[in-house]
Amino acid sequence: MTTEQLFEQIKIKKSFLCIGLDVDLDKIPASLLEKDDPIFEFNKAIIDATHHLAVSYKPNTAFYEAYGIKGWQSLAKTIAYINSNYPNIFTIADAKRGDIGNTSTMYAKAFFEDLAFDSVTVAPYMGKDSVEPFLEFENKHTIVLALTSNQGAFDFQTKSIDNTELYKKVLETSKTWKNGQNLMYVVGATKADFFNEIRKIVPDNFLLVPGVGAQGGSLADVCKYGLNNQVGLLINSSRAIIYASNDEYFAENAALEAKKIQHEMELILSAKNII
Amino acid sequence: MTTEQLFEQIKIKKSFLCIGLDVDLDKIPASLLEKDDPIFEFNKAIIDATHHLAVSYKPNTAFYEAYGIKGWQSLAKTIAYINSNYPNIFTIADAKRGDIGNTSTMYAKAFFEDLAFDSVTVAPYMGKDSVEPFLEFENKHTIVLALTSNQGAFDFQTKSIDNTELYKKVLETSKTWKNGQNLMYVVGATKADFFNEIRKIVPDNFLLVPGVGAQGGSLADVCKYGLNNQVGLLINSSRAIIYASNDEYFAENAALEAKKIQHEMELILSAKNII
Repeated sequence: MTTEQLFEQIKIKKSFLCIGLDVDLDKIPASLLEKDDPIFEFNKAIIDATHHLAVSYKPNTAFYEAYGIKGWQSLAKTIAYINSNYPNIFTIADAKRGDIGNTSTMYAKAFFEDLAFDSVTVAPYMGKDSVEPFLEFENKHTIVLALTSNQGAFDFQTKSIDNTELYKKVLETSKTWKNGQNLMYVVGATKADFFNEIRKIVPDNFLLVPGVGAQGGSLADVCKYGLNNQVGLLINSSRAIIYASNDEYFAENAALEAKKIQHEMELILSAKNII
Repeated sequence: MTTEQLFEQIKIKKSFLCIGLDVDLDKIPASLLEKDDPIFEFNKAIIDATHHLAVSYKPNTAFYEAYGIKGWQSLAKTIAYINSNYPNIFTIADAKRGDIGNTSTMYAKAFFEDLAFDSVTVAPYMGKDSVEPFLEFENKHTIVLALTSNQGAFDFQTKSIDNTELYKKVLETSKTWKNGQNLMYVVGATKADFFNEIRKIVPDNFLLVPGVGAQGGSLADVCKYGLNNQVGLLINSSRAIIYASNDEYFAENAALEAKKIQHEMELILSAKNII
């Protein structure tokens, strides 16, 4: 999927919502645990109930790896289900991978080819030759961690490096890499004050923004400086949507929560004359 | 496994060699491709031929994920085979994971509990709350990327930050984290000149050292400053050993290559009066 196609979907759905599929067997309705693949059944129900309100789904691979091979089967079934039934959805493997040269190519193949995700998150610590192998894949997107939503972001990311901050150095450096047009960045909603600075460095790239909702970030604050002419934002919410309730109405309640955010997004897009 | 037990194994085997199990189906003997699980069969043969020469095996997860669920099955079978047959081997999941709080816990469970590895490599970019969840597991070890063996290490890791270099800042900061005694660090053999500085900051921690052999690093150079009283080094070699040949004698030839390195290590340990 190209970013132009993603922008079209945002306008059609009046939404730039990404739903995080971070499935924890301890938190889903007990009735699903009797099924053969509870994680997939949960995801399928959530996706069917919310696909018209979201432009993107983002499974975090940790939640699948924790259940071993069965978890990987659930992940493979989930991405295949989205690609078959909702091909206009932008899919993100939140895997935070990164390794040297040919090893990064193996990861890229795993997520872009074997699982057929549109994008994958990667860590920048190992530099250019750890990220460029991902960027070679046409119409696939590499989402580099820039400024994350957690407290630990202040340990290194915001420290001064070469007269700037590390997260800015990551933005400035990475955008010069080969096929840099395929880059997106993770910027946490809990750091809304930083979006002004970030947009000076990467005015055009899409930003994947976790931390709205359960982690306390504000949609309006993020949009104030984060929105660009192509919207340029994917706002992720995971727990606040998928665990809206854990009774038999969990999917309907997830849709209600997603609808609240989509409605807020529609007002913002309208106010900015994007729709 | 504790670091004391690892040190004992190093003295018994007169070796601090780690063999990287980075299996590429394009590089293994064609005869294995007819087997039901070629990756596992390859690993099993390599392990059986070299277990007396190495104290550690390190599968890089990228090479398994690239083959989807079948690859994960090969990984699970490989670690189970090592744990059942060679329980004194120190096992490393080279996964370079890292995520926020509860998500890192999921990764830790995946590698320490589900797969039962002794250790896992993690990226430091997201800071304290992304690494501490791994450190909570008793007798398990978290190997933080400090200074990697690739060219991209110079993009960020060696840049000045807070009047030091980023990789030193990572060492200095991380060693203050809770259960910091469970930390090890990745330091590339291609950066042998840096070991003196690194040992000033982390004199006691084990360092996992990739880059000897195919990537050009020298064992003698690394040992000059890297060795400590408990050896404190695990030197990894992957391709130079496991792809020593791709004919029917691949395992025997792998053992010959491993023996060469083990012999060099024995001379170094003897010269230092460690054995």
